[in-house]
Amino acid sequence: MIYTITLNPAIDRLLFLEKELTKRKTNRTSKVTYDIGGKGTHGSYAMTRLGVSNLALGFAGERNFAAFEEILMQKEISHRFIQIPKGLTRESIVVIEPDNQGSTMLTEPSFSVGEAEKQQLLLFLKKYLTEEDIVLIAGSLPENFQINDLAELIQAAKEKQAFVACDLSGEALLLAAQLGVDFIKPNEFELTELLSEKTGTVEEALEQLSREITCIAASKGEKGSICYYEGKQYQVLAPKVKEINDTGAGDCFVGAFLAEFSKCKDIKEALKTGSACAASKVQYEDSSYFDPKEADILKQQVKIIEL
Amino acid sequence: MIYTITLNPAIDRLLFLEKELTKRKTNRTSKVTYDIGGKGTHGSYAMTRLGVSNLALGFAGERNFAAFEEILMQKEISHRFIQIPKGLTRESIVVIEPDNQGSTMLTEPSFSVGEAEKQQLLLFLKKYLTEEDIVLIAGSLPENFQINDLAELIQAAKEKQAFVACDLSGEALLLAAQLGVDFIKPNEFELTELLSEKTGTVEEALEQLSREITCIAASKGEKGSICYYEGKQYQVLAPKVKEINDTGAGDCFVGAFLAEFSKCKDIKEALKTGSACAASKVQYEDSSYFDPKEADILKQQVKIIEL
Repeated sequence: MIYTITLNPAIDRLLFLEKELTKRKTNRTSKVTYDIGGKGTHGSYAMTRLGVSNLALGFAGERNFAAFEEILMQKEISHRFIQIPKGLTRESIVVIEPDNQGSTMLTEPSFSVGEAEKQQLLLFLKKYLTEEDIVLIAGSLPENFQINDLAELIQAAKEKQAFVACDLSGEALLLAAQLGVDFIKPNEFELTELLSEKTGTVEEALEQLSREITCIAASKGEKGSICYYEGKQYQVLAPKVKEINDTGAGDCFVGAFLAEFSKCKDIKEALKTGSACAASKVQYEDSSYFDPKEADILKQQVKIIEL
Repeated sequence: MIYTITLNPAIDRLLFLEKELTKRKTNRTSKVTYDIGGKGTHGSYAMTRLGVSNLALGFAGERNFAAFEEILMQKEISHRFIQIPKGLTRESIVVIEPDNQGSTMLTEPSFSVGEAEKQQLLLFLKKYLTEEDIVLIAGSLPENFQINDLAELIQAAKEKQAFVACDLSGEALLLAAQLGVDFIKPNEFELTELLSEKTGTVEEALEQLSREITCIAASKGEKGSICYYEGKQYQVLAPKVKEINDTGAGDCFVGAFLAEFSKCKDIKEALKTGSACAASKVQYEDSSYFDPKEADILKQQVKIIEL
């Protein structure tokens, strides 16, 4: 089973403006749609669309739980979120201007997580996780969920010998690397930061890091991405597509990659599927939608070069 | 009794930004608060704060009715909204930048009103209105509530010989003037438009209009406001205060004016109360809050000049 953990989910409210956004004026929207926000849930969505069974875990506010759950149900995401009493799942307001002029994001503060809810999540992992399982911990940390709480969560999953994947950033990513999880997805800047903690040349530092972490998928922006897996390096060249919106492409990659990896344990196949699904995703306005059939065709165009 | 009718209410979501709003970036908010939106409900709020009994009527979406009602309850507004099945009360997102740099508004499309709900509202007026009552119809019209629906509503109130006040704009304001309601509040531009339908000089046109409409409170921007009432003209000079946010000042004026007028039927007193409450309102960040005690003091500083 694959479990995704979204500690700080959001409800994305997409406002489609009639005209360009004008500051300090009234801007009329022609359409409003809702999407789920939070990297873990996006991962679950990608897995679900690929037909790979998974369960989305995490915290969600009690006050707007019905609205949150409605979107999960629409997206057919199996879930078991722990409700934060009196909490409100934050909304991320995405203001979309006409003619692909770009989007402006307004993010709200998160709910505050109590000790009881933290224990509930830990208890769930301790009870149900097995060494056959994959756990994806993704996204930001909500208020009152400290770095040591995250450490406890990762340790609990590691103790059960599950495959622990982390799509985190900043301090949380450093912690995941220190604890030696099985998968991380740093960007160029984060990779440099991770390596700065190591000694020797860049190559030696990388060699050292990849001995501690089974799989490192490092995105290098325009230059594509590099994957370090079991002592080997792979360059991933994504297919060229007409990009409409790249928001959520990374989440789509991670979800699809883990879905494929859970089935075949073949790193090249998993990288191809992740890359192809992400390439399908960027062609849509939506921040999560992609077409698995289109991805199947795009998969043939993904190039994996062993370095 | 005073009834306010808000045909197209909103939930105002106030997002207080940490930094200046930057387009096409992620903007973090430090605080989120909720307020009621819609001119009629703001009128009811002002009346309620002045201790004048009133009932807020109108339409509201069924899907987020609980959230809408919670704000009404917090503001102690007596209400009886007709629920639109499967409808969602629109949100107006007010993005507030730090240090009073201004606010940007994002408005959503409204729900669509069905025939059954229109009839319910008409039935209520036909059943409960008396000639002792004041009805305030304020704000925009929702989808599928046409100008002839508004005409029917105004006619129903007029047939019961209630005092009909309208805070409307555009085509709806023109209709209200044509039907000869008892109170309108045009701005400078709207007044010119209303008079353009009359013949003769501006003075003659105004004379003609004020014979059809008991009370015209015309705001003239910086120059204060002018009131035409029973053949007389009054200039209203508001007290000078430190303005923080003038959103909702007009709604506050109308609510407070009608509250006072319902008690004493004295136009000068009513204008003073309306002007003083609005002067208190603009000193607060909120789009509806004002301090009745402060307004009591400010009232002494309002000047009414009979022209």
